[in-house]
Amino acid sequence: MPTINDIAEKLGVSKGTVSKALNNGDDISETLRKRILETAVEIGYEKNRIKKGDAQKLCILIVNMDYKKPSAFGYDIIMGFKKLAIPSGWNVEVVDIPAAFQHEVSYDVFMLQHEYKGAFIIGLSLNDPWIKELKTSKTPAVLYDNYIQENPSVSYVGVHNEEGFDIAVSYLKSLGHERIGYIGGALESHIIRARHNAYLRAMQAHSLPTSDDLIGYSYFTSECTQKHLPRLLRHQATAILCAHDLLANAVMTQCQEFGYRVPEDISIIGFDDAAFSAYTFPPLTTIRQDRTALGNCGYYALSSLLNSTPISTLLLRAELIERESTGPARTWDLPAPLTPQP
Amino acid sequence: MPTINDIAEKLGVSKGTVSKALNNGDDISETLRKRILETAVEIGYEKNRIKKGDAQKLCILIVNMDYKKPSAFGYDIIMGFKKLAIPSGWNVEVVDIPAAFQHEVSYDVFMLQHEYKGAFIIGLSLNDPWIKELKTSKTPAVLYDNYIQENPSVSYVGVHNEEGFDIAVSYLKSLGHERIGYIGGALESHIIRARHNAYLRAMQAHSLPTSDDLIGYSYFTSECTQKHLPRLLRHQATAILCAHDLLANAVMTQCQEFGYRVPEDISIIGFDDAAFSAYTFPPLTTIRQDRTALGNCGYYALSSLLNSTPISTLLLRAELIERESTGPARTWDLPAPLTPQP
Repeated sequence: MPTINDIAEKLGVSKGTVSKALNNGDDISETLRKRILETAVEIGYEKNRIKKGDAQKLCILIVNMDYKKPSAFGYDIIMGFKKLAIPSGWNVEVVDIPAAFQHEVSYDVFMLQHEYKGAFIIGLSLNDPWIKELKTSKTPAVLYDNYIQENPSVSYVGVHNEEGFDIAVSYLKSLGHERIGYIGGALESHIIRARHNAYLRAMQAHSLPTSDDLIGYSYFTSECTQKHLPRLLRHQATAILCAHDLLANAVMTQCQEFGYRVPEDISIIGFDDAAFSAYTFPPLTTIRQDRTALGNCGYYALSSLLNSTPISTLLLRAELIERESTGPARTWDLPAPLTPQP
Repeated sequence: MPTINDIAEKLGVSKGTVSKALNNGDDISETLRKRILETAVEIGYEKNRIKKGDAQKLCILIVNMDYKKPSAFGYDIIMGFKKLAIPSGWNVEVVDIPAAFQHEVSYDVFMLQHEYKGAFIIGLSLNDPWIKELKTSKTPAVLYDNYIQENPSVSYVGVHNEEGFDIAVSYLKSLGHERIGYIGGALESHIIRARHNAYLRAMQAHSLPTSDDLIGYSYFTSECTQKHLPRLLRHQATAILCAHDLLANAVMTQCQEFGYRVPEDISIIGFDDAAFSAYTFPPLTTIRQDRTALGNCGYYALSSLLNSTPISTLLLRAELIERESTGPARTWDLPAPLTPQP
């Protein structure tokens, strides 16, 4: 196990200087502190000043996601993780990590400074600075809904999107739907991209036609509802799958504003089963991610990384929650919605 | 929790008869025993005659795979599973399950009769009778290298094949290879099919051309080496990926018999890192599945199913083991091998 001595020797500085850098002492330049911390990470140094009997620490790092209220998406995920981790003897700290902070300090250095043994990271987008670092990082990290190729210190945990879309398409087909459209978000998110592909695969697996006329995606919900949705409706979609529930609800509302009845004229399915989805009008049929179980999986994956079992990918079952936004396919064509030209 | 009473009532028989059926008593017809056992499974009855302090039981079911010697493929997988399960308080029994036996008794009934709480199943092929039953089975089962859609009582554990082929193709490309062929086994195996697709995806991801001329697969190794391999060589493949190490070794030997030097004239990569692969001539470069870690994953997935966390898929990292069967791409064409016409 590398010691402070090893860091001091490698850099040709005194042990005292290394200790200052590691313990946030002042009287040391920021450049040197940074170099010392990076060297510590590089040679695999771990702080171990914990008193006997003290629990070791894991962290849940949150990037741009709501988690404080019980209705928030992240809340149950965190609970699911803690419910397994704490009885196993871990301390778990939840920390917000804005993108600006990621620019300031590297992931490994952050983990070393705070003596965290591993992290469960929720909400990273493909543009976040740490996404790049995680390709070569050394401290065990489990990413919710993000996949990093090859690095044996990183695991991906999420719901099985292909399975979710397959269930949804199979269910719609059983209701007589064939012209099933898809509305998604920006492809800059790993998970939105995965769902986009999952839709295409599921349609193919069920021998249903796809065409660009029935597919739309954009970062902006307004673009989805004002530009893409009218096109799908003009092309006589009888059902629309949406990449997530918030989008599904916006699409459903817009359909109704266009004079389409849900589900008589058009069926809508979301993804996630967010807390509000049982209370939309009508209540939303959706593909459920069990958030507590996802938190459990986060802990399973992290403890396996900590035991040197390099899990790459751990996917939870998806489940169809049938509510009232879906019904038999309509057997009549409908006029195109009256919309202002863009 | 359903009791013997519930079974008796449902079938209109006495408690004594149900007890006889459950405890392998005689003096009861086989038809009735079967009906009682199936009803027990259906209503979720569990035997619980275990004395206080006795460990509960899990099983590892082996279908058509060698596991008794330390060099056998299944040996380390079993060890990896046991090393986590036994310290957690489980008894683990290893049982051979030939296809003929699967015809006689259903999976759920077998598990109930032997009071196993869950199974880790190794070696099932898509033709095995239990594969169909596992689509709707109720007793937790983790399948090594087999995927069952939708059933929340079943998980799939294996290596990340896409990742493995991506690493292999990326490595060969860095050595200058572009005409990279693939030789695989029969598509009746889930995992062989997955590897076939993984090869195609990896080639596409690295912008390398694929063509039917460079791909061959067959259940029979002799067909792979006598029919497909000469075709790949005629079409100037400079490297060949094989679906597993045994096949890779056969392909390598046959290349040498055709007068090709390995790796100077042609590079060969296997998959699995079997025990013999370090001792082939030359030692085989391969994509490693860490068998102990796979056993660990089997236990992680099974204990999560037992805790009602329905894991669908758990994939281990693949790792490139570079030995001596691979080298820089040759820069010269070679004459077609002299082979008897089929």
